Amino acid sequence: MKINGFHYRTIWLHPNDPTCVQVIDQRWLPHQFVIEDLRTLEDAARAIQEMHVRGAPLIGSAGAYGIYLALLNISKKTDWKKHLAHAAITLKNTRPTAVNLAYAVDLAVSRLRSEPDVGKAIEVALQVAHQITEESVEHCRKIGDYGLPLIEKISHRKNGEPVNILTHCNAGWLACIDHGTATAPIYAAHDKGIPVHVWVDETRPRNQGARLTAFELLEHGVPHTIITDNTGGHLMQHGMVDLAIVGTDRTTRTGDVANKIGTYLKALAARDNGVPFYIGLPSSSIDWGIRDGLSEIPIEQRGDEEVKYIQGLDGKEIRNILITPEQSPAANYAFDVTPARLITGLITERGICEANEKGLLDLFPERVIV
Amino acid sequence: MKINGFHYRTIWLHPNDPTCVQVIDQRWLPHQFVIEDLRTLEDAARAIQEMHVRGAPLIGSAGAYGIYLALLNISKKTDWKKHLAHAAITLKNTRPTAVNLAYAVDLAVSRLRSEPDVGKAIEVALQVAHQITEESVEHCRKIGDYGLPLIEKISHRKNGEPVNILTHCNAGWLACIDHGTATAPIYAAHDKGIPVHVWVDETRPRNQGARLTAFELLEHGVPHTIITDNTGGHLMQHGMVDLAIVGTDRTTRTGDVANKIGTYLKALAARDNGVPFYIGLPSSSIDWGIRDGLSEIPIEQRGDEEVKYIQGLDGKEIRNILITPEQSPAANYAFDVTPARLITGLITERGICEANEKGLLDLFPERVIV
Repeated sequence: MKINGFHYRTIWLHPNDPTCVQVIDQRWLPHQFVIEDLRTLEDAARAIQEMHVRGAPLIGSAGAYGIYLALLNISKKTDWKKHLAHAAITLKNTRPTAVNLAYAVDLAVSRLRSEPDVGKAIEVALQVAHQITEESVEHCRKIGDYGLPLIEKISHRKNGEPVNILTHCNAGWLACIDHGTATAPIYAAHDKGIPVHVWVDETRPRNQGARLTAFELLEHGVPHTIITDNTGGHLMQHGMVDLAIVGTDRTTRTGDVANKIGTYLKALAARDNGVPFYIGLPSSSIDWGIRDGLSEIPIEQRGDEEVKYIQGLDGKEIRNILITPEQSPAANYAFDVTPARLITGLITERGICEANEKGLLDLFPERVIV
Repeated sequence: MKINGFHYRTIWLHPNDPTCVQVIDQRWLPHQFVIEDLRTLEDAARAIQEMHVRGAPLIGSAGAYGIYLALLNISKKTDWKKHLAHAAITLKNTRPTAVNLAYAVDLAVSRLRSEPDVGKAIEVALQVAHQITEESVEHCRKIGDYGLPLIEKISHRKNGEPVNILTHCNAGWLACIDHGTATAPIYAAHDKGIPVHVWVDETRPRNQGARLTAFELLEHGVPHTIITDNTGGHLMQHGMVDLAIVGTDRTTRTGDVANKIGTYLKALAARDNGVPFYIGLPSSSIDWGIRDGLSEIPIEQRGDEEVKYIQGLDGKEIRNILITPEQSPAANYAFDVTPARLITGLITERGICEANEKGLLDLFPERVIV
């Protein structure tokens, strides 16, 4: 999508230097637009762990490019298969909740194991990373195609009054490679001339909504309003939300959805007020091996400094300020699980289904266990 | 309650200067402890409107002292009854949602109208302000007495393991004169030696939880952990909250509760997980004249700068930084309404009742309309 009129993706191979992978370092948005060069396994692992890049689909791609960079930089004496195994563990350990990262890394490893030598393995690693990335873009585009009619229908019902859509966190193109997951139907509607307005949850503690989703929508010209995470329930009570769409970091076989902390609260409010609540997700976010989101999805706990300190712009300088008593402890659970019963539907690259095993298996019959 | 070992209230008459009312200017907490002198109607109105003082019971007292300051400073030529009416309107317009402010100001006006001259009126205005203030302290103390057994019972059930209590915003002693409303049972339990641990919602956008409730609990030695407003649902899903207690800015005759934006979301999560959800409230917060919270309680909308900018400590300096794209709009609804059906009980100065008209009228039979 566009930033300042130019088309960008979130990750790409340097056009003139194939030993360098470039990413938008999202830590400084919306205040500064920084492109970062990744040249080593450690660069890639740090970029994922410290959230220079974030969002389930994007960290999948970053993980795959991380495998490529790991192989590219080994010394001749190293056993490349051992190093591959080490790189896979290093990358998968950076973020535990999203399934895309493990999926992408495991896919790369399985495709590389049988290569005869490291030279060939490097070549294939790059192909795999490209393939995962292109597939991800295509899946987002299709989520947009399938989600668009939901918005069109509401627009008709409202006689063309703007459709108010609430979203939480950033499941936009900055969380992916392009288009986004939750935002794909929104961009598709906007680009088709359907009036939409997005309520952007700021999404504490890391403010991915206020920093990233707002930035995306602003740059693309989509009308939006930032709200605190506390506000969605009130808006829904007063008929000011027509539709909620969020992303997911991991969805179970039965349709339970792990997403950014606070998603569950919005789903409860949507249910209480009859607001449709959808998840935009590529199937790479589905963990087919688990059935109970609440007991089986590990919830990442991050440092308390993300709650106690906040970053923003003071004049032209980016500063980090303390917003709590220094001695008070803080807890930082990064995700929560929204039970399938609260979800109206899952928008996937193969269409929309109900959030349950039958719905998912109708779209993905190859996942039926026989 | 105590700050740095000394006992404070939030508002008091200057011990050596009866023309000066002093308040803790809460805008700078927890980073700086500032006492402000109020000497005029305008001082009092500004302190309420710009939230140097906040919290329903405290702005009631501040409104009453504002009437006293208004009369104290009129010139001899002014018609004091006209000025009284002007002062009442000025003060009541500063904050529209809490009923305590209008209640206190109206009470003062009704008591003053029949006074023979301004000298006598000033004397009575001070008495009324003191009386409202002392009554408020006493009501909070009793809310503590009546709420304490709820915590004791859970403590017994848990064999003395800490009782985990979630609260939203600051309905602590800083929102009142002393003890607090939602916090009164917590302080009562802690002071009795019952192990408690408080989950403190940071409460965006003004962060009254992270700034004020955490500060209060820290100074009083009550174990607590700050969490983002997104977190409570996850904690409740995992059995980490035994009880939720919040305050209210206005409660209807039928038990609907207006409180800080986001309260409704926590009440939904409590209901979904079987967590008892209580409101601590002095009866001065009850608006006996209305029955439907959602349609009849006006919800204050505040400036978008409270969402887009945030204040905190950078080294030793308090700074205000931008945390959104500068051009993105933001909405700032200050309160929401939690329907009575989601509330387990109301803890008042006369005891605990169900959140409905019958429950309230059993405790306050003088409010029965005959």
